[in-house]
Amino acid sequence: ARPKVGYLYSKKGSNNIIYDYIKEITVADIKTKPVIVTEDTMVYDAILQLFLNDVGTIFVVNNGYLTGAVSRKDFLKIAIGNTDVHKVPIGVIMTRMPNIITVTDEDTAYEAAKKIIEHEVDSLPVIEKIVTDEGKEVFRITGKVSKTNITKLFVKLGSNS
Amino acid sequence: ARPKVGYLYSKKGSNNIIYDYIKEITVADIKTKPVIVTEDTMVYDAILQLFLNDVGTIFVVNNGYLTGAVSRKDFLKIAIGNTDVHKVPIGVIMTRMPNIITVTDEDTAYEAAKKIIEHEVDSLPVIEKIVTDEGKEVFRITGKVSKTNITKLFVKLGSNS
Repeated sequence: ARPKVGYLYSKKGSNNIIYDYIKEITVADIKTKPVIVTEDTMVYDAILQLFLNDVGTIFVVNNGYLTGAVSRKDFLKIAIGNTDVHKVPIGVIMTRMPNIITVTDEDTAYEAAKKIIEHEVDSLPVIEKIVTDEGKEVFRITGKVSKTNITKLFVKLGSNS
Repeated sequence: ARPKVGYLYSKKGSNNIIYDYIKEITVADIKTKPVIVTEDTMVYDAILQLFLNDVGTIFVVNNGYLTGAVSRKDFLKIAIGNTDVHKVPIGVIMTRMPNIITVTDEDTAYEAAKKIIEHEVDSLPVIEKIVTDEGKEVFRITGKVSKTNITKLFVKLGSNS
């Protein structure tokens, strides 16, 4: 709840004001464009996309729906191993749904940050659940929230404007 | 400046209270232990340290003083290139001082976050400047502040306690 105008502020309550203020910021407010490839993309080409777009995580779709995610850390593990990154498609090495931590537009930025820390991931896909005609649940990816987005939000909160 | 007890809070001023509150948190409050290797460490062994400690950046010292830094992104670039990571020491591929963005204990967490965003880095070494007997400036590393530290701080600020 937004603090009321004229609310009497005391030192003791300062954390609550911060809390109230932060709780109003949603994932929709801070999400940015995700970098997406298809499952048949070779690992090497996905890594190129990671560098070209300067992101930390690549999201993977199949038939337009989110099926996987690969972080910079996952890629590094693959790259120093014996995998031929030119011959293995990303679908083989990715973390696959439902083992991906997600958020929705309506979640708060605080909840997203909490998930990032608790699950030790760099980035969360922002998803919309869709039920297909066959009654199957699928997920459309509409954005991502990363540690970078949270850090940018923190800078914005600390800027005196 | 810490807001005074009894300060009359208004909706219009809410950003300033957040600002005032955030401005009191220093780098010393949020820094964590850096992972450090020496310049002669092979790239492969440095990457192992990265995984074993689950960090995003490795800092490099020579004679106890900070001389370099290598991020997960730098390692990935090296790993998919033609470099033999078992035969090249990290001193060859690292970003070298003074081309490393740093902070000190007295800087605010806000300033650290701002540097992380503006310079597009994942982690900053926290340094102490020392002048040697020969009048040379050297830097001791006492910690690091990363996007993870800022995200954790954000979660703490948003926790109602």
